[in-house]
Amino acid sequence: MSKENEVCCVLPTNQKNETSPVSKEIAKDGRFVRQTNQFTTPFGEEEGSLPIEKNRYRLIWAPVCPWAHRQVIVRKILGLEEVISLGTLDPLRPTDIGKIDWAFTLDEGNIDPVLKVQYLSELYKNADPEYSGRPTVPAVIDLQTKKVVQNDYHNLTYYWEREWKKFHKKDAPDLFPVEKEKEIRELNEIIFHEINNGVYKAGFAQSQEAYEAAYELVFNRLDWLEERLSKQRFLHGDKITDSDVRLYVTLARFDTAYYAAFNVNKKRLIDYPNLWGYARDLYQTDGFGNTTDFDGIKKHYFLSLHILEKESKPKILPKGPDLSIWKTPHNRATQFA
Amino acid sequence: MSKENEVCCVLPTNQKNETSPVSKEIAKDGRFVRQTNQFTTPFGEEEGSLPIEKNRYRLIWAPVCPWAHRQVIVRKILGLEEVISLGTLDPLRPTDIGKIDWAFTLDEGNIDPVLKVQYLSELYKNADPEYSGRPTVPAVIDLQTKKVVQNDYHNLTYYWEREWKKFHKKDAPDLFPVEKEKEIRELNEIIFHEINNGVYKAGFAQSQEAYEAAYELVFNRLDWLEERLSKQRFLHGDKITDSDVRLYVTLARFDTAYYAAFNVNKKRLIDYPNLWGYARDLYQTDGFGNTTDFDGIKKHYFLSLHILEKESKPKILPKGPDLSIWKTPHNRATQFA
Repeated sequence: MSKENEVCCVLPTNQKNETSPVSKEIAKDGRFVRQTNQFTTPFGEEEGSLPIEKNRYRLIWAPVCPWAHRQVIVRKILGLEEVISLGTLDPLRPTDIGKIDWAFTLDEGNIDPVLKVQYLSELYKNADPEYSGRPTVPAVIDLQTKKVVQNDYHNLTYYWEREWKKFHKKDAPDLFPVEKEKEIRELNEIIFHEINNGVYKAGFAQSQEAYEAAYELVFNRLDWLEERLSKQRFLHGDKITDSDVRLYVTLARFDTAYYAAFNVNKKRLIDYPNLWGYARDLYQTDGFGNTTDFDGIKKHYFLSLHILEKESKPKILPKGPDLSIWKTPHNRATQFA
Repeated sequence: MSKENEVCCVLPTNQKNETSPVSKEIAKDGRFVRQTNQFTTPFGEEEGSLPIEKNRYRLIWAPVCPWAHRQVIVRKILGLEEVISLGTLDPLRPTDIGKIDWAFTLDEGNIDPVLKVQYLSELYKNADPEYSGRPTVPAVIDLQTKKVVQNDYHNLTYYWEREWKKFHKKDAPDLFPVEKEKEIRELNEIIFHEINNGVYKAGFAQSQEAYEAAYELVFNRLDWLEERLSKQRFLHGDKITDSDVRLYVTLARFDTAYYAAFNVNKKRLIDYPNLWGYARDLYQTDGFGNTTDFDGIKKHYFLSLHILEKESKPKILPKGPDLSIWKTPHNRATQFA
């Protein structure tokens, strides 16, 4: 479990209104600190767990959201598509309802065809009429009650991989092998804090210092990953694991959105030969590329992310790109001598 | 002369107030159309021209501004530093005076040491008490009157190069040779419309269509320039000319600012091997790199460009980066077989 709490997909502001659900996520020094997940009951066979049942749940995602995207990648890789249904939210948030929400505007009549609701918030209110956080994805809905029962995306892929095994397709890979559990969990913690959430810390920072600290965190870790992936095909060897799913969702959004929208602009993904080869390797694998919605990602991060900000956020000066490269040899004089 | 008029450095808004000096620069279809230069009397020996005199003028620039930067590059290459003095404006515009201006806040007491003014606008008001445009750089000030006498940056480098020849240093290169004048002027027109101002058309567009048209204009021309510079060291052969100065100022700001701030994000400069080698060749030449203020450029475009916008401008969806590259071969399987 992560010490740092998180829920997707956050939309911070610097609204002075302290009762705003999102202003709570900016620390006094300008750091972005994610809100806590509320629906964390595990799936499993034990008493008090959420039962493992085919056609019992509907997974709600927005393709733009990295935390939700990884659920959908795992669902596809493991062949859970006929077991857990999928509801999809519009990458563009509604702008006319005066609050932060996600909408089923991609569906006919702007209504999810199974749950018959217009907004994600309705499913949170079903679960807790007093719910005061932001409605977030991924959210697992119990079809019997139309309530959110799980939004703990930090552990959700582990449940699909381990607890839902009896419903996996015949030749499904083991994304979370017991013999590698410790190293997968350890690396996932690093990937979460320094990559997945690292880019958000940079993009949502409300002070120059907080931004620069996050920038360093992200690029130091990318350098480290670049080195690791020069020696092996995937993060834990020659087979795809849960860690690869977690790293992929951020890499797929890096040049497309984060580089410019979150000011993580020291280098792009495509400037790292090994990470870039690795990212394409995954993209070209069933479950990754065919669940990656680049258009939706761009629309969300550039058109919809900050729509409800009442005041402009503090200006941040991007730290990159690396300008020392202007002094590198060019050989133009010799070339055209 | 360009058909499209322009003055540096513009700061557009979509303020509904039609009397705003900058709202006039957005066409009905969202295109950005620069305001006209007002002080266009040529330098020269002819009656009615501005006289060519040592220590008569002060050139005012902001290192962030490409239109002003090219004056300073030419001044340095030609050795005019002891002939025309230089006043430098802060990359960050003043935010507390309720109007668009540039300030001498880099100088002691926030006052230009020679002209004894605090803001650029004072020099425009000296020249024309009714001046209603934005105060812009480059501006050439007559020290006898403290009035702006020239801000026609479209032709200003030609004057330094041709009319000020008697003051050039001994071995100064000819940046505007008579035998190449026609092709230099022709290429400069293209560079202006499609590169120098092309990036502004993209960044300041107030409709998706206007932005996308500008984006295509910029990258089609960069492709064409990449090809041209694969065959020769500089734009017109083996010697630096005025055209190289004009192209350089945009290239130097491309990855640093425009790529993200103006959404010209199909590729970066460093993704074009020939343009990138060419840009470094110039950067490493006296007059170019040592007049390039990357820090100031970043501060201006990211912190100061839109400070006076009263309403948020229409959201624009970036067209790049090129996402088709995700489908290119990666060879990771073979590499780690």
